[in-house]
Amino acid sequence: MPYKLYYWDSIPGRGEFVRLALEEAGADYIDIAREPGGTNEMLKLMKEPGGAAAPFAPPFLVDGSLVISHVANILFYLGPRLGLAPEDEGLRTVANGLQLTITDFVAEIHDTYHPIAVSLYYEDQKPEALRRSADFLSERLPVFLGYFERVLAQNSSSQRYMVGDRLSYVDLSLFQVIEGLRYAFPRAMEAYEANIPGLVALHDAVRALPRIRRYLASQRRLAFNEACVFRHYPELDRQS
Amino acid sequence: MPYKLYYWDSIPGRGEFVRLALEEAGADYIDIAREPGGTNEMLKLMKEPGGAAAPFAPPFLVDGSLVISHVANILFYLGPRLGLAPEDEGLRTVANGLQLTITDFVAEIHDTYHPIAVSLYYEDQKPEALRRSADFLSERLPVFLGYFERVLAQNSSSQRYMVGDRLSYVDLSLFQVIEGLRYAFPRAMEAYEANIPGLVALHDAVRALPRIRRYLASQRRLAFNEACVFRHYPELDRQS
Repeated sequence: MPYKLYYWDSIPGRGEFVRLALEEAGADYIDIAREPGGTNEMLKLMKEPGGAAAPFAPPFLVDGSLVISHVANILFYLGPRLGLAPEDEGLRTVANGLQLTITDFVAEIHDTYHPIAVSLYYEDQKPEALRRSADFLSERLPVFLGYFERVLAQNSSSQRYMVGDRLSYVDLSLFQVIEGLRYAFPRAMEAYEANIPGLVALHDAVRALPRIRRYLASQRRLAFNEACVFRHYPELDRQS
Repeated sequence: MPYKLYYWDSIPGRGEFVRLALEEAGADYIDIAREPGGTNEMLKLMKEPGGAAAPFAPPFLVDGSLVISHVANILFYLGPRLGLAPEDEGLRTVANGLQLTITDFVAEIHDTYHPIAVSLYYEDQKPEALRRSADFLSERLPVFLGYFERVLAQNSSSQRYMVGDRLSYVDLSLFQVIEGLRYAFPRAMEAYEANIPGLVALHDAVRALPRIRRYLASQRRLAFNEACVFRHYPELDRQS
């Protein structure tokens, strides 16, 4: 039975971290948002009585009768099934810790343009967004990317992968983070990328994977846009 | 060998979600921050080359040679070992999804007084904090607490617990969230709690557990304060 991925239509967003894993594994899955009536089906499912399994927000994955919510949780579940997690249980726990740091980083990226309220438009919190983005680019982006660069450089099994000696969903997610940051903050990234040669090489290696390359060239890969988590507002990028 | 919990000294903070699980299980653990030189030991460990296992931020747990970071990851690891997770693997995944929703909720609670930058003091972002807190109390708090109330009411196994038919770390964490919200936003919670009778009953049931009751009365339970995740700034609470 195919996996069913539920996420908002028309944006890569947080769903993309799951799509990349499914695509790299060549897994059988249905991207519900792309099916006719998919969004309505998702909203209906979220309102149905589901007890503890009712998801708080998309993305969520349905595998048979199991409903799995949150990106890191979905990837922790899929990782071993798709051959995209370490064999060792301890290293799987380490991979989950890294993925949760990516989760936090993505939330901070989101808040650059929504610092006051998700219920308000960006235009209604623009002065605050300018202030938050400046801090994000000078303080937070180097802290997070520097951390991931350090983890990669110190991986005793392989400097090609984040955890252990083979590709995992953590590598795929970091590829997507770099892609998103380059879209959202092209000037800041251009200025910063010399500090993270390992991550840039990791990004390029993921992009060159045969299945990923085919996926990126396909209609299934959605373009970034200003309804996504990664948004390009030039005034929030590094100035000069 | 005892578990070692690494977290900042003098605050309950995010470390408290882990402490509550260890305490309810009667587990053998060392709270490193409370030991002489504990904070220095933590900072040293975070700077050492650790590859993929190097934690991005506290709290983290050390079990033998394994370093586990992020609250939800630590609890997912400890849950089965402490008898505080469902037996069923699918339900454990569901519990992890709920815990990650708690993680998101706690991050939004934190951002009420730090909407612009964690590198700035609250006093340097007070107008923004007033605006964000008002939105949080009117929009986000009801969405999150309403969601958890619904999950509890729809649990087909038991309406006493969030997942399955026995106590889990998710219940302990929600107890702490209610405690923290009552400390940070007493007026708003007083006005809202009639909407969440199930969660209030769950909170009271956790507080009455013999080991939790003894822990809360002990010196090991730290008081909330304005260096913690849950902070009481009266001007950010519901007015009138």
